[in-house]
Amino acid sequence: MKNTKLVIVVLLLCALKVTAQQSDSTRSATRQHRLMPVPASVRFQEGRLKIDASFNVGITGHKDARLEAAIHRAARRLEGRTGFEFTRTPASDPRSATLVVECKGPGSAVPSLREDESYSLEVSDRQAVLNAATVVGALRGLETFLQLLEGDRAGYFIPSASIQDRPRFPWRGLLIDVARHFQPIEVLKRNLDAMASVKLNVLHWHLTEDQGFRVETKRFPRLHQMGSDGLYYTQDQVREIIAYARDRGIRVMPEFDMPGHATSWLVGHPELGSAPGPYSIERKAGIFEPAFDPTREELYKFLEVFFTEMVQLFPDEYIHIGGDENEGHQWTKNQQIQAFMKAKGIKDNHALQAYFNQRVSKIIQKLGKKMIGWDEILHPDLPPNTAIQSWRGPQALVEAARKGYDGILSNGYYIDLIFPTWQHYKVDPVAPDSNLTEKDLARILGGEATMWSEWVSPETIDSRIWPRTAAIAERFWSPRNVTDVDDMYRRLDSISIQLEELGLMHEKNVDMMLRRLAGSKEVGPLKTLVSVVEPVKEYRRNSSRTATMLTPLTRLIDAARPDSEAGRRFEALVDGLLSDAPHFRRNQDRIKLVLAQWRDVRPALDVMIERSPILREAEQLPRDLSDIGTAGLEALSYLAADVAPPAGWREARMALLEQAAKPKAEVEFAIIGPVRKLVVLAAEMPGLKKIPHSQWKERVLTLSSDKPR
Amino acid sequence: MKNTKLVIVVLLLCALKVTAQQSDSTRSATRQHRLMPVPASVRFQEGRLKIDASFNVGITGHKDARLEAAIHRAARRLEGRTGFEFTRTPASDPRSATLVVECKGPGSAVPSLREDESYSLEVSDRQAVLNAATVVGALRGLETFLQLLEGDRAGYFIPSASIQDRPRFPWRGLLIDVARHFQPIEVLKRNLDAMASVKLNVLHWHLTEDQGFRVETKRFPRLHQMGSDGLYYTQDQVREIIAYARDRGIRVMPEFDMPGHATSWLVGHPELGSAPGPYSIERKAGIFEPAFDPTREELYKFLEVFFTEMVQLFPDEYIHIGGDENEGHQWTKNQQIQAFMKAKGIKDNHALQAYFNQRVSKIIQKLGKKMIGWDEILHPDLPPNTAIQSWRGPQALVEAARKGYDGILSNGYYIDLIFPTWQHYKVDPVAPDSNLTEKDLARILGGEATMWSEWVSPETIDSRIWPRTAAIAERFWSPRNVTDVDDMYRRLDSISIQLEELGLMHEKNVDMMLRRLAGSKEVGPLKTLVSVVEPVKEYRRNSSRTATMLTPLTRLIDAARPDSEAGRRFEALVDGLLSDAPHFRRNQDRIKLVLAQWRDVRPALDVMIERSPILREAEQLPRDLSDIGTAGLEALSYLAADVAPPAGWREARMALLEQAAKPKAEVEFAIIGPVRKLVVLAAEMPGLKKIPHSQWKERVLTLSSDKPR
Repeated sequence: MKNTKLVIVVLLLCALKVTAQQSDSTRSATRQHRLMPVPASVRFQEGRLKIDASFNVGITGHKDARLEAAIHRAARRLEGRTGFEFTRTPASDPRSATLVVECKGPGSAVPSLREDESYSLEVSDRQAVLNAATVVGALRGLETFLQLLEGDRAGYFIPSASIQDRPRFPWRGLLIDVARHFQPIEVLKRNLDAMASVKLNVLHWHLTEDQGFRVETKRFPRLHQMGSDGLYYTQDQVREIIAYARDRGIRVMPEFDMPGHATSWLVGHPELGSAPGPYSIERKAGIFEPAFDPTREELYKFLEVFFTEMVQLFPDEYIHIGGDENEGHQWTKNQQIQAFMKAKGIKDNHALQAYFNQRVSKIIQKLGKKMIGWDEILHPDLPPNTAIQSWRGPQALVEAARKGYDGILSNGYYIDLIFPTWQHYKVDPVAPDSNLTEKDLARILGGEATMWSEWVSPETIDSRIWPRTAAIAERFWSPRNVTDVDDMYRRLDSISIQLEELGLMHEKNVDMMLRRLAGSKEVGPLKTLVSVVEPVKEYRRNSSRTATMLTPLTRLIDAARPDSEAGRRFEALVDGLLSDAPHFRRNQDRIKLVLAQWRDVRPALDVMIERSPILREAEQLPRDLSDIGTAGLEALSYLAADVAPPAGWREARMALLEQAAKPKAEVEFAIIGPVRKLVVLAAEMPGLKKIPHSQWKERVLTLSSDKPR
Repeated sequence: MKNTKLVIVVLLLCALKVTAQQSDSTRSATRQHRLMPVPASVRFQEGRLKIDASFNVGITGHKDARLEAAIHRAARRLEGRTGFEFTRTPASDPRSATLVVECKGPGSAVPSLREDESYSLEVSDRQAVLNAATVVGALRGLETFLQLLEGDRAGYFIPSASIQDRPRFPWRGLLIDVARHFQPIEVLKRNLDAMASVKLNVLHWHLTEDQGFRVETKRFPRLHQMGSDGLYYTQDQVREIIAYARDRGIRVMPEFDMPGHATSWLVGHPELGSAPGPYSIERKAGIFEPAFDPTREELYKFLEVFFTEMVQLFPDEYIHIGGDENEGHQWTKNQQIQAFMKAKGIKDNHALQAYFNQRVSKIIQKLGKKMIGWDEILHPDLPPNTAIQSWRGPQALVEAARKGYDGILSNGYYIDLIFPTWQHYKVDPVAPDSNLTEKDLARILGGEATMWSEWVSPETIDSRIWPRTAAIAERFWSPRNVTDVDDMYRRLDSISIQLEELGLMHEKNVDMMLRRLAGSKEVGPLKTLVSVVEPVKEYRRNSSRTATMLTPLTRLIDAARPDSEAGRRFEALVDGLLSDAPHFRRNQDRIKLVLAQWRDVRPALDVMIERSPILREAEQLPRDLSDIGTAGLEALSYLAADVAPPAGWREARMALLEQAAKPKAEVEFAIIGPVRKLVVLAAEMPGLKKIPHSQWKERVLTLSSDKPR
């Protein structure tokens, strides 16, 4: 067991070394930039382009309303940051403007997978020149320009630089599930702005589910009327979102999940189902039985009418038909369906679904669209024009590519599972050693982060998507070798603040939620607590509760965020201390301060919990936090006094940390690992003294590490 | 001079005594409630109604969609605060529900000045019963119910109580100027929710100004097309807002300001103006010359068509025609107009405007509406059905009432002027000793807070309106004798947090703006600074700048808020210390802590300002704050040591405080007063010892006070 851990640690150290070398990509010509995603090529030079009230933009090439609107928005954001009021009068000679934008042409009328998004940006101390083949390329370059802004004693400026940029993958998406928890169009709009700011280009709009049918249909109004609790997008709103996305160079791909995940359709149209019904909107999270009856010709007539209406609404070349997680229980129980299968020689439910997919695929092809679905739709009979979205993994994509299917990766980008950013960042859409031909490799189109919405509300969704998705966006855009985790986090901190200027609420809603929890403006102690916990991960939320889609999402877990920044910072402090063998003085004062805060915050938290019954579930957490702080401080005392802890101390503290590590109120501490290191270090000191200093850190990590990056 | 100050202090002390007596109104039966506005009558009893997951609402009387929607919204808010998921199935016997709502009828189809908004709420430990004559009355009672929620160790509950409530005034409004800075409909919606939560019932929608014409007209599309930069409400959006307001029992009264404040009309229709034009949208703040030409018959034809279209859009019984601040310069310069006046025997511009008003009034009456305008429209020839909105003062309303005109007060409620809450709270719509007959008194309909939008953006407007307007709402609703300022502030703190659950951003946008200013998440030092400053008051903003309506509102002044809470708290601490003669120990540790923080924050702030050129204008503030902290700490040292400060110390410190009190970066410190008291106290100690202890505080206040409440 210990050997295994040692191996992990060694691998980890190798990985760190590799990333340290790669980090050059963000430190070109010695300048630490804050670009995210990192451009394909960036070179900084001496000099700077001053940004002051005289800033203006000239358009010298192709000009259209979309480009002008984008420049207007960019100028307003620059004004907001700098406080200057720029002129609104176009420069008399556009070639003399501070920023010159030169597009060759408009690009696709409808944002497309084949859009040329490349651009170059040349910044000298006189001028910045942005060149692009299409307006979308110019939009991408404008975002880079905004990210380059810096300020110092001499004022605001853009550093002189030469940037040539283009995306690694043409499909860089974010799935937003608006079915389980409906998200009003303001939420979509601000997220589209955020997507554009990190160069994502596909909104995958997951519109239907067991828990809701979210789009108005004129042909089958019972779908949205009976399947949505009144929470759906009107067709005008759909057009508004599509136009908003197009303005930002973003495709909008609708998903209509079938034949499973379809309960909400059956509320108004039970005749489509494989059991007689009646059906009601599903309120729970999970996988449910209701599924279309693929043996009925009426179903295909219905779907043809339905898709004919939808393709008029959604201009994107793809229609996503879901296809996931249909277990076919209703099919197995339905004698008519069984008879149909026997008659047609369909051997099992998977084959029946393949039959369904083929039928749907024909409809979609007839309407001039391409079909895409989740892994499950992959079947020998699938038409070649179809694409696969993989929740299974990169290897599934490689296989699909070999069979001639396009694919995008979502496995590894499930942001609803609350994993830390670095974990998503490490996943590459192309499996290592995939050995694909260049042609097959090109079938791996990119990937999508997936915001499944079982446990997010309009109030919390931003904090689940951002800032983590910015790092995923970098994975999709930047060269494969951009993988330095520390540097990613450094840049992510800046990007996270810039997202706020677009109205994103991932940061500002935390304190608001704490004020509501506390019923008071004085939330300092609660903030200390919530900053060091994370929501439980994977599918552990509500595993022991009877929560539904109607349960309020206003608890401590909802205010807590993935990837605790305070936890990360504390871990970095402790790692710094560990590197400082044999004295372990580095960061010690700061670590002590933090630990003492944790130890001492308990009484104030106890009072708050006493007053707010909604916090009662968290009443163990202040005690745990206090214990964690105390354990760490004790370890530091032993270290400082160079005294071995008494017998049993280490075991007692490790047991206590293990206890504290268990989720309570469905959150878990993100600071156990580094405190465990301190305890191990203090306890191991007598032993460490017998081996070379250079091996101390490794030994401590070996004995305590539980979270290798 | 000193005598004058003494008089003020004595008056102040009397006032404090009076308010201490009045505060009983919020402490009925010994319970400190957090209701705002305070109900007409409230009695608490022993006992509590437990609120848990079984909470449900039964409707026993009149039932309609508006009532059901309001109950739905209230239940969701209660869920959000408590974390419970309530059942959505109606109780089988509504009479057995936790909360029973019994309305007699729907009330007016269109929210009306004559709506019966009264309700009673009886809460026992078994049930709460809300009775109202109309649905709007029930909405008001639901808000009271939500404000009653409390929590303790035993869980959430509503205290047993008997409440009979009705508004003092039927017109309780908020003017939002959407012309100078356009406010998207999300901003209006969340503010309508906030208004409803404190029982305001009129949105005065200031739609047209020199700087913008904000409503779509089908008859004269050049008005919004050329007068709005594309920032206007479509007629669908107007209907959406009116429906949203109606759902919350709120009237929507449009204002079309004329004959002055009309530049934006003239951009597309220069023929309406008194000078030939051409006109362009005004970008500056102020009073401008462009005005309609009241001598042209075409104008009245135009206005008749215009108002005919508008009354189909706006169902409210009133049309506001502005009428303010027309100085008539264009009229004086126009020979045709002068000739017209001579021919008709119109003696001056005021009389010409009266002529215009009469003509407009006829149009509005013909369309079945009542006219309202600002003070200036008051003229002997004004038809009796007209109402006056007074920016001049309560006395103007009394005079109008004597002449038979209805009136509402806005003087004293100009929230754009950044005065502290208590100052607005003290203003009563009915002038004291007005000696009006009961019938004339009834003509004073209420008042309106006015959110003029020269210097607010969608990002900052909430913080200018809230929470201060909640106290103004109380002035309009609650009995006249509810005037305890300290108690108002205590309740306001709670209300402010509850406003956030409606999406209001007055609180959460502050840190967001600081993060943008600092370009960093670490805004602690900046927060310390911004919490103790306030934006400059009255019309001092931009008095020395060339700011326009296009200037970004993202500076320190925009993040700063009116009525600094930290300033108020510090003043209370110092007043507590002053009351503790002769030892002055009370609060001393806390005061020291605060002062030391001010003294020590400077280096961190200096670094932030160095990095963020937008903060450069504030570079003197950290020095001032440090000086303020040091002066206070010195004073405390002298006090503690019982040592007289050296000669000249007092003068030097007072000079320094005077320097610090001068606005910089257009903000001013809200903490100078109490520090001045500390300095005076330390300096006066030798003298104080010669007079009785009981006179010490008064003496210190006399010598230092500059802000009597």
